[in-house]
Amino acid sequence: MTVTRGRLVVFEGPEGAGKTTQLRLVCDWLAAHQRPFTGVREPGGTALGNEIRRMLLEPGREMNARAEALLFIASRAELIAEVVKPALARGELVLADRFFLSTYAYQVVGRGLPFEEVRAANKLATAGLVPDLTILLTVPAAIRDARIVARGGADRIESAGDAFHALVERAFNDCADLAWQGAHPECGPIASIDAGGSENEVLDRVTSALTAKLPDLFPAKGDVAHV
Amino acid sequence: MTVTRGRLVVFEGPEGAGKTTQLRLVCDWLAAHQRPFTGVREPGGTALGNEIRRMLLEPGREMNARAEALLFIASRAELIAEVVKPALARGELVLADRFFLSTYAYQVVGRGLPFEEVRAANKLATAGLVPDLTILLTVPAAIRDARIVARGGADRIESAGDAFHALVERAFNDCADLAWQGAHPECGPIASIDAGGSENEVLDRVTSALTAKLPDLFPAKGDVAHV
Repeated sequence: MTVTRGRLVVFEGPEGAGKTTQLRLVCDWLAAHQRPFTGVREPGGTALGNEIRRMLLEPGREMNARAEALLFIASRAELIAEVVKPALARGELVLADRFFLSTYAYQVVGRGLPFEEVRAANKLATAGLVPDLTILLTVPAAIRDARIVARGGADRIESAGDAFHALVERAFNDCADLAWQGAHPECGPIASIDAGGSENEVLDRVTSALTAKLPDLFPAKGDVAHV
Repeated sequence: MTVTRGRLVVFEGPEGAGKTTQLRLVCDWLAAHQRPFTGVREPGGTALGNEIRRMLLEPGREMNARAEALLFIASRAELIAEVVKPALARGELVLADRFFLSTYAYQVVGRGLPFEEVRAANKLATAGLVPDLTILLTVPAAIRDARIVARGGADRIESAGDAFHALVERAFNDCADLAWQGAHPECGPIASIDAGGSENEVLDRVTSALTAKLPDLFPAKGDVAHV
């Protein structure tokens, strides 16, 4: 079996859902299976993107919500052009920590910006690139809060207030409820995954979703010996 | 006569057309007439915008065209929210060195980005704010080149190559030809002004356009004594 086309898989969810941990575990799992991959995170992942990340997350900085959204999207444009598209062209699996669904949850629902204009700006950034799969991690708020407290610290977005984060969480939950219904074509298909339990329990659910949704990349066990 | 509503007047044109010089002279003219005004420039004009300006203009930096466009537009969003709208609310005349027409000429025509997506991203930045007047300075290429050489130095955009600047110049010239025809509603009305001749000759043309196009702000001479 020859893989000629890379795939973009996005990890989404509110703060404390475990995106970054799961993305790291999936990278380990892919490495163990000798599957070429590239992991990226937003904002950042390029020289320009890391400068934008510093501006966006610096605690105490004041910034208009529209400028904030456009900076996140500018970082995405650079990341896609410089890292994601070249990796996809090499046939790699690209794993992204956040993508358009976060822009929707934080900037459209959380900040109240107009959806159609944000969507168009995102299209300018992505040049039409859509994830092959969005893995949306959902977890009860009490568990998320405990995880956030455990890791300590808070950047500018994390410390944006309870009302803001309640809106963001509701946006993610609504997206989970709408999974597979095509309400957010910018996300590609959405796999909603219960992120409660141990890291390995969640990893099992995530890798099951990957193998089920991208069967040509992850053939059933009987086929593996022939890869 | 009481002015209760500010106005946004934008100065546009290719490198070397004399925008910045004319904007400074118009500021002096407004000050001499005791007319409250605020002058701004793009990119920049705010703390965030000046950081973005440094990223955009730094010679030798590499950047995807889509990220570049989004950074210019993000700087505009912050400038409008933090400086332009408050000044308009105080009833001031706001004079801007570049606005959407530059995004059109440099990023849409010069870089070849899709117009509708750039326009939507701009609308996200401006929240619908449109200039009351765009003053488009046009000048033969030979005069512009001499002015650019005379001032020396070149930032990343200025040094982007002759083919790029030929596209940009053509875009501005096309806009001048289309003046007042509403082809670019984001610019508001466009006054096309010959920027050849001495600084004071051009200033006379610019102030004539201002008084003609914004008559309630600049009453005819017979009325001035009663202000």
